[in-house]
Amino acid sequence: MAHQLRSIQTRARIIGAAVEQFIRFGYEATSVDEICIAANVSKGAFYHHFPSKQALFLALLQDWVQELEQSLTAICQEIEWVPQRFERMADRLQQVLEQAAGQAPMFLEFWYQATKDPTAWGASVEPYQRFRSIFARWIEEGNQQGSLKAVDPDVAAATLVSLGVGLVLQVALEHQGLDWGTIPRAAVKLLLEGMSTAQAQAER
Amino acid sequence: MAHQLRSIQTRARIIGAAVEQFIRFGYEATSVDEICIAANVSKGAFYHHFPSKQALFLALLQDWVQELEQSLTAICQEIEWVPQRFERMADRLQQVLEQAAGQAPMFLEFWYQATKDPTAWGASVEPYQRFRSIFARWIEEGNQQGSLKAVDPDVAAATLVSLGVGLVLQVALEHQGLDWGTIPRAAVKLLLEGMSTAQAQAER
Repeated sequence: MAHQLRSIQTRARIIGAAVEQFIRFGYEATSVDEICIAANVSKGAFYHHFPSKQALFLALLQDWVQELEQSLTAICQEIEWVPQRFERMADRLQQVLEQAAGQAPMFLEFWYQATKDPTAWGASVEPYQRFRSIFARWIEEGNQQGSLKAVDPDVAAATLVSLGVGLVLQVALEHQGLDWGTIPRAAVKLLLEGMSTAQAQAER
Repeated sequence: MAHQLRSIQTRARIIGAAVEQFIRFGYEATSVDEICIAANVSKGAFYHHFPSKQALFLALLQDWVQELEQSLTAICQEIEWVPQRFERMADRLQQVLEQAAGQAPMFLEFWYQATKDPTAWGASVEPYQRFRSIFARWIEEGNQQGSLKAVDPDVAAATLVSLGVGLVLQVALEHQGLDWGTIPRAAVKLLLEGMSTAQAQAER
């Protein structure tokens, strides 16, 4: 048990140190040696957790996407009224954005690797397709329950995902240019306004 | 006159070749020599037009942003009814997106350089701030003319720019994953729906 906890802790320390190095020096310029020094772990410990630098990078991405998907599942189970689900999702987006502020190099690295390597693409771009399917299902459900108009679910889902991705990129690049504090929630609300039925708007 | 035309032509050829090299090999890995070979121009001709590779890169960005800003100015002069202005802007966005398909490495390079170099930041990120001001003014105007609701102009403008940036990034990364054909127009329309007055919606 103590051993397992220590192992989880070491893995987290390696990931934390790697993120820092990637942000400061970029993915390409960072070596496994440097990550080990920054994390204060042996190379043996590193390779016990990750077969390669790329494997670490993909694990980092997967952790992040998995966390997001888990919150969407939880939101879906907890909340039935679809406009409220999207509002809760906007709260979650707000947290992502707070973490993203100033982290542009990391996000750009994710996307850049995705253009060069199919595995990285699968981990960093393919999830958008899953998010779109989840949102499209929610939108259909909203239409059935009378909270959302009969908008095209695929178009509306693609719009929501693009808005989310755009906000992440903007906040990552421009964290000092604008007070992003309430903008994500307000942006999602604005978009929902166009999709909501009169009934849903009255219930606000 | 003939000399001037040739000079413009050479400049365009250098930029065209550079874009191709940047997309294939990345900005860092591309040398001035390689651009000259690809463009079939002498190094003297290159340096006549651009003092450095970075200057070429910034010129490329500036050309692109300037073109976008000019279309916004033209749209503003031609069209008074603000919701229609945004619809025209969505048409323009559609053209940008058609060019952006598969060009993720180039866009990511723009943004990546921006995180490292203040001059590149000024050329690739700062324009978003100008676009936001333009849209905020349009939204205020729309409110005065009775076509748009009294939404917060800064929030709505930030939402529109984030949606645009997100669509560019998504199409650049995922040009094969989804038929983006009508999505940008539909996305802007969906957002406008939430902002438009009943009068503007009836006039559709």
